[in-house]
Amino acid sequence: MSDAVVKKRVVGIDISLEETTFAVVDVRGNILAKDSFPTLDYPDVNAFVATLSERIVEFVEQNGGYETVRSVGISCPSSNFLTGCIVNAANLPWKGVIPLSAMLRDRLGLAVALANDAMVIAMGEQAFGSAHGMRDFIVVSLGSGMGSCVFSDGNVNLGYDGFAGEIGHTCVSLHGRQCGCGKCGCLETYTASRGIIITAKELMEESDKPSLMRQEPDLTPKKISQFCEQGDELAIETYRRTGEVLGLGLANYASLLDPEAIIFAGGITKAGKWLLDPAKKSFDEHVFHNIQGKVKFLASELNDRERDVLGASVLAWKVKEYSLFK
Amino acid sequence: MSDAVVKKRVVGIDISLEETTFAVVDVRGNILAKDSFPTLDYPDVNAFVATLSERIVEFVEQNGGYETVRSVGISCPSSNFLTGCIVNAANLPWKGVIPLSAMLRDRLGLAVALANDAMVIAMGEQAFGSAHGMRDFIVVSLGSGMGSCVFSDGNVNLGYDGFAGEIGHTCVSLHGRQCGCGKCGCLETYTASRGIIITAKELMEESDKPSLMRQEPDLTPKKISQFCEQGDELAIETYRRTGEVLGLGLANYASLLDPEAIIFAGGITKAGKWLLDPAKKSFDEHVFHNIQGKVKFLASELNDRERDVLGASVLAWKVKEYSLFK
Repeated sequence: MSDAVVKKRVVGIDISLEETTFAVVDVRGNILAKDSFPTLDYPDVNAFVATLSERIVEFVEQNGGYETVRSVGISCPSSNFLTGCIVNAANLPWKGVIPLSAMLRDRLGLAVALANDAMVIAMGEQAFGSAHGMRDFIVVSLGSGMGSCVFSDGNVNLGYDGFAGEIGHTCVSLHGRQCGCGKCGCLETYTASRGIIITAKELMEESDKPSLMRQEPDLTPKKISQFCEQGDELAIETYRRTGEVLGLGLANYASLLDPEAIIFAGGITKAGKWLLDPAKKSFDEHVFHNIQGKVKFLASELNDRERDVLGASVLAWKVKEYSLFK
Repeated sequence: MSDAVVKKRVVGIDISLEETTFAVVDVRGNILAKDSFPTLDYPDVNAFVATLSERIVEFVEQNGGYETVRSVGISCPSSNFLTGCIVNAANLPWKGVIPLSAMLRDRLGLAVALANDAMVIAMGEQAFGSAHGMRDFIVVSLGSGMGSCVFSDGNVNLGYDGFAGEIGHTCVSLHGRQCGCGKCGCLETYTASRGIIITAKELMEESDKPSLMRQEPDLTPKKISQFCEQGDELAIETYRRTGEVLGLGLANYASLLDPEAIIFAGGITKAGKWLLDPAKKSFDEHVFHNIQGKVKFLASELNDRERDVLGASVLAWKVKEYSLFK
């Protein structure tokens, strides 16, 4: 027996524009304790890191002790696993390139791994969710934007620079909708929140059909899916068109990558069959015949409130333990 | 020292519709001897395998001896590395599913690995060519069809079923050209041989411009690229349009996969700058901004006459040595 303590717990952190959540998680994915604070309280990133590290130290001391924690994993938009930096995040208050991993490691004295939300979700799904036991799969995250993570032979495809996964900014229509990224026809201009609302509005203009959507001043994808449940034709058609484009985009990547499954996470995918049935139909129409009918469409199995910190905890195990003395 | 002989050579085989070539290759990629016979002489696959194995036994006996050969690698269209089978090959005389690896292994008593041409080329380029030292890259092969192979973190992306790489059958135009696969708008209907000829004919119909292409009864991509060299405007425009579509398709996969480089092989890519300059321009217009300007476009560095058997020799090292007694 060596004197070294075997550390059996990690900290998983999820940073989004609204909220920063952190949790102590064990090797089996049990979330032992969880807390959060509003991200926007800290428009300055140094103040954010100072508060986050203080909160974490206090939190782990109250929940098992600092010496039981091995490392830290962070899920954060626009983050690069290879450099440990947040890079030009559109959906965070801090601009430019921010070496978040190093900043937090220096304060905590713990190894810190950082990755974008799609990659972290994929790791969580592989460890504890829909992708358990799978080696080749794609996770697609649909919300205000569209992200993805490709697993090949059991490992994340990071790409050369760590920028892989920008499925939302692949082109599905050469002279299509204007995207916030500057290009036209990006997949997410049809499949993420804003795109779905645009499709709904286009449909309401094209047609004279009555629709619950017409009376709704603040239309959201969630409300549209609720209208689907009530049998609203235009709402159903909105998700059908969305699914059609989604299935086409995914078919192309499946022809190239031959995944066992595509796993859907994020708020938009709560629309369930209204989105995924037409997506699967379009997918099987467009995918190469050798894999037609074979690729599974699965919903994320992990609990919404836990998915991100759980995935971040899986990420935390991927880094070497840190010590100034090693 | 054990009694086991360390076997320092392999046999690389390339099967195409025209010709079957086989070579003895050493660990450094030196092709020590090479021979071939016409594939179409054997419309029956059993006769083909009988002849191929007899020729190989004789050939290696004359070139260093059977006991010096470790294993066999085969490059063949429509082949699946995971199953060792040729599957519904459009461009071979033998139909259905053919367990070529097992058939040849049983006759030779040597381990046999089989893979499609794009994967074999990618392995050759990584071992001895343009992709040497790279871990994340895509090889695109353009000829009568369009194939591809994705390397992620140093390894081939085979996909779940071994059917990955069908880049030629990804959709770039929803109601586009009819493809032999049954779908419309497949990338290869614009970028492979037949598609380029169609583009040339469309251009000749659209315009009254004189062109050397108009006098050519038997137009080929090679002839069109020769006309480009002579300054023929319509020929140049043919490759420009081809490159534009190619660049768009590749941009999508690069946004998803973030490769260090895309490496071009196959007869069509001999058009060089006439194809690749417009392709790179279109690529950088459509790729996600984080990797814009970063992805290298490279031509295959390997000798045309040797590329396939050389790649097949690299493949041969990937299988475990075979013995009835192990």
